Amino acid sequence: MQYISLRNLRFILHEVLDLEEVRGNERFGDFDREAIDFSLDAAGQLADQYLHPVYTKMDREKAYFADGEVHVLPEVGEGLRALGSSGWLSAAWEPEYDGQLMPLTVLNAGTLIFQAANGNLAAYGLLTKGAANLILEFGSDELKNTYLSKMAAGDWQGTMALTEPQAGSSLSDITSYYEEQEDGSYHIYGQKIYISGGDHTEAENVVHLMLARKKDGPKGVKGVSLFVVPKYLPGPGGLTENHVTTAGIYGKMGQKGYVAAHLMFGEQGITRGFLVGEELRGLNHMFLMMNEARIGTGIMATGAASAAYYASLQYARERPQGRHPGNKDVNAPQVPIIEHADVRRMLLFQKAVVEGSIALLLQCSLYQDQYTARGDDRSRLLLELLTPIAKSFPSEYGNESVSLAMQVMGGAGYTDDHPVEQLFRDIRVNAIYEGTTTIHGLDLLGRKVMLEQGKAVTYLAEEAQSEIGAATGSTASLGSALGKGLAELQQVLTQLLQLAKREDPRVFLADATIFLEYFGLHVIGWMWLKQANAAERALDAVEADGDRDFYRSKLQTARFFFQYVFPRTAGLKKTLLSADRVTLDTDPELLM
Amino acid sequence: MQYISLRNLRFILHEVLDLEEVRGNERFGDFDREAIDFSLDAAGQLADQYLHPVYTKMDREKAYFADGEVHVLPEVGEGLRALGSSGWLSAAWEPEYDGQLMPLTVLNAGTLIFQAANGNLAAYGLLTKGAANLILEFGSDELKNTYLSKMAAGDWQGTMALTEPQAGSSLSDITSYYEEQEDGSYHIYGQKIYISGGDHTEAENVVHLMLARKKDGPKGVKGVSLFVVPKYLPGPGGLTENHVTTAGIYGKMGQKGYVAAHLMFGEQGITRGFLVGEELRGLNHMFLMMNEARIGTGIMATGAASAAYYASLQYARERPQGRHPGNKDVNAPQVPIIEHADVRRMLLFQKAVVEGSIALLLQCSLYQDQYTARGDDRSRLLLELLTPIAKSFPSEYGNESVSLAMQVMGGAGYTDDHPVEQLFRDIRVNAIYEGTTTIHGLDLLGRKVMLEQGKAVTYLAEEAQSEIGAATGSTASLGSALGKGLAELQQVLTQLLQLAKREDPRVFLADATIFLEYFGLHVIGWMWLKQANAAERALDAVEADGDRDFYRSKLQTARFFFQYVFPRTAGLKKTLLSADRVTLDTDPELLM
Repeated sequence: MQYISLRNLRFILHEVLDLEEVRGNERFGDFDREAIDFSLDAAGQLADQYLHPVYTKMDREKAYFADGEVHVLPEVGEGLRALGSSGWLSAAWEPEYDGQLMPLTVLNAGTLIFQAANGNLAAYGLLTKGAANLILEFGSDELKNTYLSKMAAGDWQGTMALTEPQAGSSLSDITSYYEEQEDGSYHIYGQKIYISGGDHTEAENVVHLMLARKKDGPKGVKGVSLFVVPKYLPGPGGLTENHVTTAGIYGKMGQKGYVAAHLMFGEQGITRGFLVGEELRGLNHMFLMMNEARIGTGIMATGAASAAYYASLQYARERPQGRHPGNKDVNAPQVPIIEHADVRRMLLFQKAVVEGSIALLLQCSLYQDQYTARGDDRSRLLLELLTPIAKSFPSEYGNESVSLAMQVMGGAGYTDDHPVEQLFRDIRVNAIYEGTTTIHGLDLLGRKVMLEQGKAVTYLAEEAQSEIGAATGSTASLGSALGKGLAELQQVLTQLLQLAKREDPRVFLADATIFLEYFGLHVIGWMWLKQANAAERALDAVEADGDRDFYRSKLQTARFFFQYVFPRTAGLKKTLLSADRVTLDTDPELLM
Repeated sequence: MQYISLRNLRFILHEVLDLEEVRGNERFGDFDREAIDFSLDAAGQLADQYLHPVYTKMDREKAYFADGEVHVLPEVGEGLRALGSSGWLSAAWEPEYDGQLMPLTVLNAGTLIFQAANGNLAAYGLLTKGAANLILEFGSDELKNTYLSKMAAGDWQGTMALTEPQAGSSLSDITSYYEEQEDGSYHIYGQKIYISGGDHTEAENVVHLMLARKKDGPKGVKGVSLFVVPKYLPGPGGLTENHVTTAGIYGKMGQKGYVAAHLMFGEQGITRGFLVGEELRGLNHMFLMMNEARIGTGIMATGAASAAYYASLQYARERPQGRHPGNKDVNAPQVPIIEHADVRRMLLFQKAVVEGSIALLLQCSLYQDQYTARGDDRSRLLLELLTPIAKSFPSEYGNESVSLAMQVMGGAGYTDDHPVEQLFRDIRVNAIYEGTTTIHGLDLLGRKVMLEQGKAVTYLAEEAQSEIGAATGSTASLGSALGKGLAELQQVLTQLLQLAKREDPRVFLADATIFLEYFGLHVIGWMWLKQANAAERALDAVEADGDRDFYRSKLQTARFFFQYVFPRTAGLKKTLLSADRVTLDTDPELLM
């Protein structure tokens, strides 16, 4: 069963985004078009072989905690090691660490394939890669030599250990702490909750990238440092106990094969931690992994939505039901439901969300690559501005997208005879992972749009305007819809920024989540215009019918986006421009 | 834990809706204000005792099929019989059948309580009541005497047996059939799928209200009759086998305690059916139960959304996290999350959906009562027009509402430590039950708005205008927002009806689902204006602080609805007015 379109990934990489500059840069390996296609095909084969076949099984035979251990299926270990041994976890690294200098744009296209095939399994790898990247960036040589190769192989699991019972979104309030010993080493104490991949039987070791507070140090984020805290201490004689205890795992609505553990440190004996980077700069360092994980969450959500789209598309092609309105002939055969306009609406919505999200996620990856290549402000600022959208849009609209996949399938979609019900449960957590949608709204409006006097927004507007300028022929009307939207967005932003000067931050930020959706729809609109322009250009040149259909499909979906999804901006704008402060005005006791 | 507000139900029944006329009518029992309150309190106690305590348990220890039987918890039977013995299943009936002549408006307020407490258990009762009502309306005296008292007691389960593998939404395509025997009796053959309550160990008998086609009779709906088909045949010597075989039950994402069975008739022996009403008028008769079940589905969805709202509200009051924007003082204690504007937005959204839906469902029940009382066209047409909204709005917006309850609770909401994840899974099926949302869009635009030359819409506009006229003081701005919306709705409708004259029905109906949402937001707007006007009137009169808070809470929520939810009409209108036919234009092969 199809779960993603490789053809679409190739279209985005080769025809929508401009990878030339990245490809030509010495920082990156020699990834020409052929090499990229080869990598994608290899990812697809790996996903078909190791990931996709166990997606349902990981849900049915879910992870469980017994005798102090978290049990997962052997296939989880096999998949993780397959990702490792095929080089995907270390692909972006330098050859010194067995990497291939793969551009992130290509690597994340591969990750999209893995996430669509089986997000529960791919996530173990994603997390391990993210944790290892943090060691690579900030760790000492000793840490790198000790941990990287084992993690890159998928033998050791990596995690990010941030959340605590009293501090979910508020990392400045963590209370787990460390004490420096006389020999300069560190002991770690405290608890962490919801730690994804936090412990499991298929990993020889678990490597926590953990935030802890300096004992008697400064309050708030300024007292927080980053540590490597391994489950077992690697040493010349092998692995020895480090007293990281698993208290249990959470029963979750979805992602039942992807454990979230409750961990205790230093309670049953001494837990050692190894400082990563500078002391008291822990949160700052952690942002490297958090930003990567935010893009990763967007990819995870998009992967689930992609799998659901193709499941519902196949069902819609095969399932006969009803006749066209107006056809009262009971002897006429029933038509496949894809013939019904509303079923097409539900399919096009999914396609618009999935492919719009893929374009944005790879666009963000390209900005990262460009920044890596030339260290320019423009790429960095665009990436920073777009990260909250790339995380939130696929998570929020992905929920709606998978819900429509279920709706296409009717009662069948609600049963476990089909994968969509699991995808519906699985995808829902992405709007919570790595900062809830609310947090990203605050990040976007409270920080990102004002970065360096609004430079990031200016750059984004330039990018979008250049695409609007390129819109001709059948995409001209889409370009003008986006242009009109951007002018309105400017008006909304101006009013909000005036509010920021005049009023309490509470007032300015009260509707930040609404702004996030509003802004995000424009960003996805830009992505659809960009795809439509590329399709329009290509249509003139191609001759094969199949290729023509592919490009026409893109143009239809872009049209759909601007007609059925983008108009939501109209209502959001009304809410944002209103001077009524009803959410702030409503005293808690009036919520009853 | 609270799952519904009785205070709110009393407000709707006594202060928003006008039950005077119904109360005074001889058709109804003597339900004065005190009797109504007594009934609601009794429902609350029953729900607290029998339903709510087993909500989670019914999910964890879900129904299963073994040895040809569907096993459910003993508590299901206890709850069902408690609903029966306390008179709720037969409350609306005449004393002759042990009824109390309870108005449906009151009965459905009780049903809301049951559904909020435990929709999985209440549903068994709802279905039994609906099946029994069909026998009461169309059945012979013999059928009534044989079945009604057992069903009213909750000893026998009732079902509606419509769906078949090849005929989901398309009832004209059913192939299960009946053959009249020489003695005038009927034998039944075929299969039915997704039959809720279709078989379980806690029912002594299961009574299927089943549609079957006359063998060699007319094709389409004209060949379909309605039968009572019991699992066991009641006779002087007790119950005997009727060869209704359960092939299995469906594994569902939610409502795991509420079975959906696959049934086979006449395969293992003779299955007898008993004609209900006129032969070949089966679908027509069935609409009585289907319309009741559609309102019932709206109630089911609203109940789940209500329970989720109160769970997230309690969590938001108790959970400290973060500080207000602008407060950088790390020594300041964290605030309960209800202090955050965006959390209030998510709570107010839920309250707007839940209480708006309750108002509409009880308004529809009142129209039914009025029609029962005086048989007038106005009430009947308003009920017919509003039924697709009363079914779909709570189902669709209820999904979003429960999702926001989860979002308020963050990671905790995604775990099974709290009831919200179950509510999220459970509520999702309501947009599929009893006609998917698509079907209700087609019903509304293709049939209901044109009923008797649009009379229903005219009546609705009159009702809304009268409420707009009554809006003064703090509700005046809400009234004018609704008025403006209705003028635009008229414009949209005019354009669509021109399309209906000019174009193929496929074109006219292509966006029927969008129209359903658009129209529904106006209907809920009317409901919120009606509640706000009632609160405004009451505020002047009350003295108790608690009561003042209740009414102020209503006014805040109405304000919220018009500022955060109603503006969605702006985007929907754009889509509806567009002349681009992108969903119809997109050939199936372009969906890839």
